[in-house]
Amino acid sequence: MKVAIYGYGNLGRGVECAIAQNEDMELVGVFTRRPPETVKILTEGVSVYPVEKSVEMKEEIDVMILCGGSATDLPVQTPAMAELFNVVDSFDTHAKIPEHFEAVDQSAKQNGHIAMISVGWDPGMFSLNRLYGGAVLSDGKDYTFWGKGVSQGHSDAIRRVKGVKDGKQYTVPVERALDAVRSGKNPELTTREKHLRECYVVAEEGADLKQIETDIKTMPNYFADYDTTVHFITQQELDEQHSGIPHGGFVIRSGRTGKNLEHQHIIEYSLKLDSNPEFTASVLVAFARAAYRMNQEGMSGCKTVFDVPPAYLSPKTGAELRKELL
Amino acid sequence: MKVAIYGYGNLGRGVECAIAQNEDMELVGVFTRRPPETVKILTEGVSVYPVEKSVEMKEEIDVMILCGGSATDLPVQTPAMAELFNVVDSFDTHAKIPEHFEAVDQSAKQNGHIAMISVGWDPGMFSLNRLYGGAVLSDGKDYTFWGKGVSQGHSDAIRRVKGVKDGKQYTVPVERALDAVRSGKNPELTTREKHLRECYVVAEEGADLKQIETDIKTMPNYFADYDTTVHFITQQELDEQHSGIPHGGFVIRSGRTGKNLEHQHIIEYSLKLDSNPEFTASVLVAFARAAYRMNQEGMSGCKTVFDVPPAYLSPKTGAELRKELL
Repeated sequence: MKVAIYGYGNLGRGVECAIAQNEDMELVGVFTRRPPETVKILTEGVSVYPVEKSVEMKEEIDVMILCGGSATDLPVQTPAMAELFNVVDSFDTHAKIPEHFEAVDQSAKQNGHIAMISVGWDPGMFSLNRLYGGAVLSDGKDYTFWGKGVSQGHSDAIRRVKGVKDGKQYTVPVERALDAVRSGKNPELTTREKHLRECYVVAEEGADLKQIETDIKTMPNYFADYDTTVHFITQQELDEQHSGIPHGGFVIRSGRTGKNLEHQHIIEYSLKLDSNPEFTASVLVAFARAAYRMNQEGMSGCKTVFDVPPAYLSPKTGAELRKELL
Repeated sequence: MKVAIYGYGNLGRGVECAIAQNEDMELVGVFTRRPPETVKILTEGVSVYPVEKSVEMKEEIDVMILCGGSATDLPVQTPAMAELFNVVDSFDTHAKIPEHFEAVDQSAKQNGHIAMISVGWDPGMFSLNRLYGGAVLSDGKDYTFWGKGVSQGHSDAIRRVKGVKDGKQYTVPVERALDAVRSGKNPELTTREKHLRECYVVAEEGADLKQIETDIKTMPNYFADYDTTVHFITQQELDEQHSGIPHGGFVIRSGRTGKNLEHQHIIEYSLKLDSNPEFTASVLVAFARAAYRMNQEGMSGCKTVFDVPPAYLSPKTGAELRKELL
């Protein structure tokens, strides 16, 4: 399988590493909107091209993995690239998925390609677990918790506060809420009861720390609805102890069975990730394999993780999977 | 969807309850090898038939859910029933799955039916998690732990010991082993390090308790390779405190990503089940829905959980799934 990468940030670099971990795949190019000579990639012997060049390489690429952002890049790039290639993206604006699906489906179908959207862990692996959990335990309730992990959006919000030089925000699931869900009590949980927000802030010299703390804790949408803690630290501490991009979370389905629903069952799926972008990239690469195979079998159109027979994700044959993993 | 049940023990009863929990399904009959008038089912207005009658009801049943045992029932029943119906079974003799697959595939293909085998939680949901985990984190290792739960085979083995009147065995995962796996150490674990065996035994009057304990703990295959504890209790205690059939377990994938594999990720899937047969039944019913749909689309042959696009398991439409769960 010949795979290419469109967009080379943290996610693109993660995809590059993941391709190197899969023997049935070969990286054949990285496409960038920056001047190609300014982009240095990790894989020797592979070229960086300007995005315009992708049209000419239509025949040399089996799947294009799109590594742009959901806000402005993917709504344009995914439908456009699906005209030329099988594509996979990680579009993660949950509310706009139906709209994105329609735009991409049309383009992919007209050109006989598979376009796999919203691949990653949420949307992605977490979505799969919400689906499986609900299909199996139809009388039940599901809960998604995120963290402990870095939220880029909330970290950006902190950095926009007056007097803040730098900062990072961790989303933390509340242990008491997790335990209540695991106990099968099916609690109704408020936003505040589910997650905490922990902020590590580097203040500018002479800044009013009390004011910064208040500005953060009362910020609407981002922090006001949560129990938020603010820790002031030095730039050195931030760089040394908070430079990673860990994340993770939990999907829990709690449900009942039996004649009188007398039996309780708990299904729990959890992720603990050292690197959010690299894990997302690993999911993208597995679904790129599936996209290629589905297209080889004559399928086309927009697909999500819900549409992919799991066997298509693995390099093993059906017989190997049944013997080794079933 | 018109669903029927073949074999009415704990699993068959669980399937009956699960069908009642799913509005798009209707139970149209229970088939038994016992005299039908001796079998009392829970659903009013549904008949119990002798198994021979199934041939005549070919047109009235969309999916037949087979609830026999893996040792002697299913190797015969699944290929035979796949001639007449779309079928789902819970064949769980892992080593014989390839052989079972071949026999069933032939019969299902020749007759244009879908036969979904080895559905449940292991094989089944656990297999899916082994596959997804390995496909996403290709550099890694997976671990399956079972329990805490009742093992029917080990309970039977206890009851065959001289001087034992009744007994029940719990398989218990070792917490220290789970923690080592979760820490990302990728330990090599022996059989003894992974699971404990806890036995609750009712002795016959005047029996040699010391001897019973020794006989159990040294029993090859079943107990000799494990740290086993034996608790002697009264029949009343056994009946009151150990009458349930709970089970569960863990599938953990631990893997690394990054240029130098510097990032660690842990994927953990766990089940805590009050009723092993009822949960298995709930999985069977969800896959019965998929079997029917796949057949409606013209597919046939033997399938496993690996071959089923997850969307087929849910009563929701593709658009609903994308909007609500993705």
